[in-house]
Amino acid sequence: MAQRPPARPGDSLEGVATPALCVDLDALERNIARMAAATTGIRLRPHAKSHKCPAIAQIQIAHGAVGICCQKTDEAAAFVAAGIRDVLVTNEIVARPKLARLAALAREATLGVLVDHPLAVAPLAQAAVEAGVTLEVYVEIDVGARRCGAAPGAAAAALAQAVADTPGLRLRGVHAYQGGAQHLRTPAERSAAIAAAARDVQATRVALAARGLPCDIVTGAGTGTWPLEQASGEWNELQPGSYMFMDADYARNAASPGDQRFEQSLFVLAAVMSVPSPGRAIVDAGLKAFSFDSGLPLVHAAPGRAYVKASDEHGELSIDPSVAAPRLDERVWLVPGHCDPTVNLYDWLVAYRGDRVVAVWPVAARGALG
Amino acid sequence: MAQRPPARPGDSLEGVATPALCVDLDALERNIARMAAATTGIRLRPHAKSHKCPAIAQIQIAHGAVGICCQKTDEAAAFVAAGIRDVLVTNEIVARPKLARLAALAREATLGVLVDHPLAVAPLAQAAVEAGVTLEVYVEIDVGARRCGAAPGAAAAALAQAVADTPGLRLRGVHAYQGGAQHLRTPAERSAAIAAAARDVQATRVALAARGLPCDIVTGAGTGTWPLEQASGEWNELQPGSYMFMDADYARNAASPGDQRFEQSLFVLAAVMSVPSPGRAIVDAGLKAFSFDSGLPLVHAAPGRAYVKASDEHGELSIDPSVAAPRLDERVWLVPGHCDPTVNLYDWLVAYRGDRVVAVWPVAARGALG
Repeated sequence: MAQRPPARPGDSLEGVATPALCVDLDALERNIARMAAATTGIRLRPHAKSHKCPAIAQIQIAHGAVGICCQKTDEAAAFVAAGIRDVLVTNEIVARPKLARLAALAREATLGVLVDHPLAVAPLAQAAVEAGVTLEVYVEIDVGARRCGAAPGAAAAALAQAVADTPGLRLRGVHAYQGGAQHLRTPAERSAAIAAAARDVQATRVALAARGLPCDIVTGAGTGTWPLEQASGEWNELQPGSYMFMDADYARNAASPGDQRFEQSLFVLAAVMSVPSPGRAIVDAGLKAFSFDSGLPLVHAAPGRAYVKASDEHGELSIDPSVAAPRLDERVWLVPGHCDPTVNLYDWLVAYRGDRVVAVWPVAARGALG
Repeated sequence: MAQRPPARPGDSLEGVATPALCVDLDALERNIARMAAATTGIRLRPHAKSHKCPAIAQIQIAHGAVGICCQKTDEAAAFVAAGIRDVLVTNEIVARPKLARLAALAREATLGVLVDHPLAVAPLAQAAVEAGVTLEVYVEIDVGARRCGAAPGAAAAALAQAVADTPGLRLRGVHAYQGGAQHLRTPAERSAAIAAAARDVQATRVALAARGLPCDIVTGAGTGTWPLEQASGEWNELQPGSYMFMDADYARNAASPGDQRFEQSLFVLAAVMSVPSPGRAIVDAGLKAFSFDSGLPLVHAAPGRAYVKASDEHGELSIDPSVAAPRLDERVWLVPGHCDPTVNLYDWLVAYRGDRVVAVWPVAARGALG
């Protein structure tokens, strides 16, 4: 059911059918190398929920990543099928058919998963035992995002004890991701959030140590905060995902002095389909071509043009009178507001260098919701 | 690359892997029958951009629809491949490779398309002539939505003349869709918008008649306004799409007296994956499971529970203290805020009656962006 690829390797960018999800491969590789260089003293396990693309996971692993993160069993299945051999599902899996599937994947790869509730331990262990595998388990703690996660400290340690005591499961450590801090705009806000999270991690490590439980890995962090987790000394594994693509919303974060800067490598290539009146043009990319949860796309490298409104299959550009009016079928490069859910709309990712298509990668875990 | 189907025919709903896009087949069929009964005196050409699903198009045609509408060449290709023989692409197509593809489809089906600019006529005709086909062409006029469309009246008539004078093209009439009126909340606002649109249609019909040009079909309307277009006498073809599914946003439109009411037939079936604290539960459906452009999903048939926040793969439910706390893996039925772009996230649509899966339909035109 996947749609036809919008291009073939060797095509010029002019030949790409619009709208298409495109990645500037030089910029992508620079971003990946930059993150690898900045994290040499710590484990890097990039989050693959952002790209859903085994070809990119392989580049990250070639640059030293210990493996990848996924959010869903279906995602893990797509990456294991593509040959990735170390996958951490940074999420709670509680449905028995999904647990059975996860355990089956652990025959082919190291498979980690989170727990945040005592009732989740036994079904997880049962699936592992029935499949004859050991699942790596991390206790998720809520470090301020108020999403999933056990309370830090004693409650988390009691849960860790249950994991450690249960056959089929190997307690690996703690998952501590402050999702709510990633898009805080100022360095001071992000620092305060991660400092609080670090105290929660420390309290949990102390509580595990008091029970004599192992805590080999403390994993977390995202593109908005990873230097803070790294500097804290409380985490020894980082999970940023968006850094290799970036998006309009991450670009709105004010940087700290010395922050790594990542380049925008991800674009949607759209085309003008109607020029109904001066000052206005309509492109062929709307609500089905972008996720709008973090705002409108930005027009790239074309001053005087702004994407101002979307309907299902259309985007309206406003054109400043001082710039040239767009022509019918003129190409427009757009920066997604939020990369992850935008990538999830596309079956294919067109990788290009300069003006040439180098590869057309399947977004293999697109729609991997289960 | 499509994901595995979340269910098999014959499964109970408890066996459906979450999150899954589900349709209550009884409600869907009642909606389709209701619209068919209400439009016996006028051509009905439902918009397939809402469902992207050939199985549903076939039901609509069996109930008397003259054909379907699509928005994209890729969508049209998916429906023609599935055997639909009359497709109107209610959009401007200007890229030459897309025009060639559209013309090739016209060998297998009646294919209509819009124009709103004089420069679009020659490439369209060239594609038709090269493929040895005739394309049915409608002049799109802007009736107030300020999206695509030529100015009503003289400008539209001049464009119609160019179409009529060009080999390979058959001028069929006028496309007049007031997209901006569909979600106006009060009957008075919607009436005023469609009354204004009707005046634009009339002016355009007069201008075409003055040139001796045919205008056999005036097509437009959506789920929010179709009774108004029907009653105006200016349109003789209606294009509603969402009526067979409905969504939370359409439910916010206040009805006119005597309006047909359509039932909510479309749901996302999600499951509770974490119950981190009293008053709060996390489900497995977030920004990749719904489009949020028209607001949050609504929790269906479970008073005291509300979907209050989304992240990429998670949704937060608030739980009123007066109702029972959700269990881990408990199923939650959610009504999408906006049906069309939500459907576009799923590879499969689970059709059920009562508590039994009847069919699992491919969303064949999912991701059909080009």
